[in-house]
Formats: sequence, C-alpha cells, structure tokens
Amino acid sequence: MSLLPSHAVIREVGLRDGLQSISTILPTAVKCEWVRLAHAAGLTEIEVGSFVPPRLLPQMADTAEVVAFAKDLPGLSVTALVPNVVGAQRAMDAGVDHIVLPISASTAHSQANVRRSPDEMIDVLRSIVAERDTRHSQVRIEAGIGTAFGCGLQGHVPPTDVLRLLCGALDAGADCTSLADTIGYADPVSVRQLFSQAREIAGERIWCGHFHDTRGLALANVFAALECGVSRFDASLAGIGGCPFAPGASGNVATEDLAYMLASMRVATGVDVPALLTLRALIAGHLQGETLHGTIHRAGLPLTFPETTNANAP
Amino acid sequence: MSLLPSHAVIREVGLRDGLQSISTILPTAVKCEWVRLAHAAGLTEIEVGSFVPPRLLPQMADTAEVVAFAKDLPGLSVTALVPNVVGAQRAMDAGVDHIVLPISASTAHSQANVRRSPDEMIDVLRSIVAERDTRHSQVRIEAGIGTAFGCGLQGHVPPTDVLRLLCGALDAGADCTSLADTIGYADPVSVRQLFSQAREIAGERIWCGHFHDTRGLALANVFAALECGVSRFDASLAGIGGCPFAPGASGNVATEDLAYMLASMRVATGVDVPALLTLRALIAGHLQGETLHGTIHRAGLPLTFPETTNANAP
Repeated sequence: MSLLPSHAVIREVGLRDGLQSISTILPTAVKCEWVRLAHAAGLTEIEVGSFVPPRLLPQMADTAEVVAFAKDLPGLSVTALVPNVVGAQRAMDAGVDHIVLPISASTAHSQANVRRSPDEMIDVLRSIVAERDTRHSQVRIEAGIGTAFGCGLQGHVPPTDVLRLLCGALDAGADCTSLADTIGYADPVSVRQLFSQAREIAGERIWCGHFHDTRGLALANVFAALECGVSRFDASLAGIGGCPFAPGASGNVATEDLAYMLASMRVATGVDVPALLTLRALIAGHLQGETLHGTIHRAGLPLTFPETTNANAP
Repeated sequence: MSLLPSHAVIREVGLRDGLQSISTILPTAVKCEWVRLAHAAGLTEIEVGSFVPPRLLPQMADTAEVVAFAKDLPGLSVTALVPNVVGAQRAMDAGVDHIVLPISASTAHSQANVRRSPDEMIDVLRSIVAERDTRHSQVRIEAGIGTAFGCGLQGHVPPTDVLRLLCGALDAGADCTSLADTIGYADPVSVRQLFSQAREIAGERIWCGHFHDTRGLALANVFAALECGVSRFDASLAGIGGCPFAPGASGNVATEDLAYMLASMRVATGVDVPALLTLRALIAGHLQGETLHGTIHRAGLPLTFPETTNANAP
C-alpha cells in the first residue's frame, strides 16, 4: 500500500467557494476575523475571496479589503480566485500572493460559468501570465481545472480532455494546477486514476485537490489522492458552499473534518483542530439560516485523538 | 496502488444495529417488508435482528418471526446477533444461517455491553460452537470483534489486544471474524494497519468490516479496507443507529451511500442502487422523528452513474 505524505497543507476556501454559494453576505469585519482566527489555528493558505464583478457576486465585493487585512498576517499565503484578466489585475493591485484561474474541463460548464470555452480560458491564462510578467510581479498563478471528474450539464468528462487542458495550462505559463471535483462526481478510483496520470505529466506542479462532498465521498477521495502523493487540499469551514446543479447538496469537504482525518492519520498539517472547531462555532453563529455541514463538530474528538498534532507541523 | 476486489458484499444490519439504537419500534410487518425489498434490491446477506432478552431490547422481540419470513427468500443468508449461549440456541431454533457473537476488545466496553470480559466471551463462543456441533447444525458462527479501533470508555485499544482476541476466537472455533469500529474512532491508516495484520493471521476468515460514520470517515475507512482485500461490509439503511458514547452522532455507514461508492468504483455488489433509494424513502416514512443519515439520497445519482451496475454481479 502506498505511503502517505508526512505533511499536507489544508487551504481554506470557505471565504470564496463557500460564501459565494450562499445568500448571507458576511460583513468585512467578520471575514477578517475568520481569516485572523483561521491563521491563528495554523492555516497557512487562505483563499479570501474572488475578484469578480460585484453586481454578479455581491458577497465578494470587499475582497480587496480582506486581502489587505490578510497580507499583514505573518507567513500567510493570500489567495484569490479570478475569472479573467481584469480580475487578475485587481488581484495583483491588491497584492495577493496566489491567483487561481478556474478552467472548466467541461465545455458546457465553462460556457455556463464564464461564457468562454476551455481553450479560450487557456488564452485568458496566457494573458494573465503576460500581465504578471510585465509587472514583474511575484504572484503565483494556478490553473484550477474544474469539473475534472464529470459535469452536471454534460455528464461524462473524458480524462483525456482534463489532461490536455492541464498540459495547455502549463504550456501557457501556469505555475501550478489543481484538479477539482466541482460537483461531487469523483470516487476514490477515478481520483487515483486521474491524479496519478496528472502527476506523471506535471509532478509537483499538481498543486492541490479540490473535492466537494456532494455525494459523501470527499474524505475518501482525499485519502485516494494522498496515496498518489497529493499533499494540498482545498476545504471549507463547516462545509459551506454548494452546487447549483445539486440543490441541497453539500459544498466543499469541511475543513474541520479534513483536519481531523489528517491528524488522526498522523499526516502533519500544523492545524489546531480544537481551535478550528471553536472558529466553526463562531462562524456558524454568523451564518444562521444557512445549511452547514461537517461531522466532527457533532461527535467531538475521540479520547484517543493525538494531542501532539502540531509537534511535527511544517 | 493496491488493486481493489472486483466484487464485494454489503451486509444490511439496519434491522439490528440500526433499530436497536433508536426508540421507534417497527412493526414486524414493516421489518419483513424491509427485508423483502432489500433482498429484491440485490442484498444477499441481512442481519435481521438479535436474540437478546426482550425486556432489554423490545425492538428485537420479534426477531424469530422476521427470521422465519426471511428464510423463504431465495439465496438470502439470514443473520442474527446473539450475546450469549441462550441467544445462540434461540437463533439456531429459529433457523438462521449465520450467527454473530460480539466480542469487545475493550474490557470496559465488554463489561458495559455484556457484563463479561473479552476472555469470558471467548468461553461463550466456545460453548456456542459446542452447541452447534451437538446439534449438527450448519449455522456459521462469526466473532465480531468490537471497539477494535478504540473505545469511548477506555480510550486506546491496543491492536495487540484485538489480534490476540482474533486468534482466541479462531482457536475457539469461530468460522470467521469481523473487525468493528463500534464508535467511529478508526481512520484509513489505522484500518490499513489492523486489517492487514488481521488478514495475515486469518486470511479469508476476516469476514467483514463494520464501520460507524460517527466522525465522517466510514467510507474512507471502507476504501482503505478494500485496499487490504476486505470485500464484505456491514451497512445500515439511512445510516440509522448511533452510539451511546456519542449522542447525536451517526450510526453505521449508510447502505445506499456504500452501494453508491462501490458501484462508482465498479466494484460489483449486485445491488440496485435506485431500488435501495426507493426502499430508504419507504423506511424513512416509518421512522419519522428519528435522525436519519446518508448523503446520496439528497444529491441524487450523477448523470455518469454506471447503468450496468448489476451486469457483473456476483
């Protein structure tokens, strides 16, 4: 059986992928408090929002302010999603460390999401890289390949389409890529197959796995990806988020559940799970009326939970 | 990466492990309908109840009647749990195919559950085997090693205690054994370690994995066990059941979620997942007011769900 990585990074995306999918608009001060406490709990990478037109996503209108706050936290990689060149310019103006450009492997989903084909998004990526180089910016650019395991509109997404897009993104200058199960179609075997192939092509430039728990398999999928050597995962506090193609379904894997599983398996993350549970309770108080997810907050940590989780943190 | 088994068996235990943990007492006719429809959906092994004193578990008072009904269904292995010799005698009188004797690896849990130490339960097992042999019965006897991954009372349960008990059970004449994560303390790495060691000792006599989803890891744990070659899993429709040591927590892995994951990975089970979802809705109607679990019934099957799940069923 495959050895697991000794360390892994949990990237919090609840402030972006989570909040964009629910109706509550959190005040900027609450978002900043979330970022501050997540960082204090040991998270070193946080996607704090997206640079999209505020008329489309008013939840994200204050992303530049949250970035400004987050930049002052020591050692934190401040990440934002951008859908186009204008968004990337705003992200660079704001001073983010890391940009994620979503590129959907499903043509149908890509058109619905950003009104561009996957290949046109590769062109967008190329333009963002050029903009970065013109500015002599140090920002890292990630191509987030979405609907990589299937699409609620088109159904099957051939792995060859995903891998072709992955190669295209790297050729266009992406520093790294991630594979996203946007709507919860992946299973541990498809994760194994696609991540293994992707890592054969791109090695460590396969930066992150992004799993939605829509059909309950997110943690099993994380385990399968860990076995392929993947060691960075997106997660959303309280599993917030959702999917327009699966009403009532869960969003991203819950940060606290992922942190619990990794700690149980002695995969070091540097994350303080009890602190994360305290943060979850705080944010839940600000999200009343929204459907939250996750399991460990209900059951509580086992008596046997490792007390020295942070001892060998990265 | 390890090959998965091509086939697996899902054993429905909701009528026993599920119903014993909730306050609703299902009428015998409803239990029989559940058994009939589960069998019709392709389940070939069902734990229909337990032979315990009715004053302790009135939910199980009609187990002999349910057994009598289930015995008429072609190809169904009718299973019942027994806590002692008297229970085993009643089970054999009723004509079950398969008996499960729970033996807790945690002394504290064993005393709380059956008022006997683990070693005393090995003696009980030996007496049940003798009873079976005296009767020239063909019933198969399984030792279900519980709290194998930790205990809510005593905390850590050393794997050596579990393996010692496993050897003791086989020496005492158990036909097969299972390892149960009774309270949801297991993680994929501990599952790998313990099941690998157990299979080195007992091979195919490691009959079944029993995972509770108390902390959200049941499906990940199933995947890890599959990688060890384990190919039979207990599951409970709608994830019913629970744990006295974790109020509000989930019970067994949900049958429909497990069937969905296995079908997605092309591990053949012979189970018709849509039929299972229909059955879930029917039983949920009889369990109003109870906390149900599971995920796939909310999100629905993916567009890409294999239509030929049953084509290579066992």
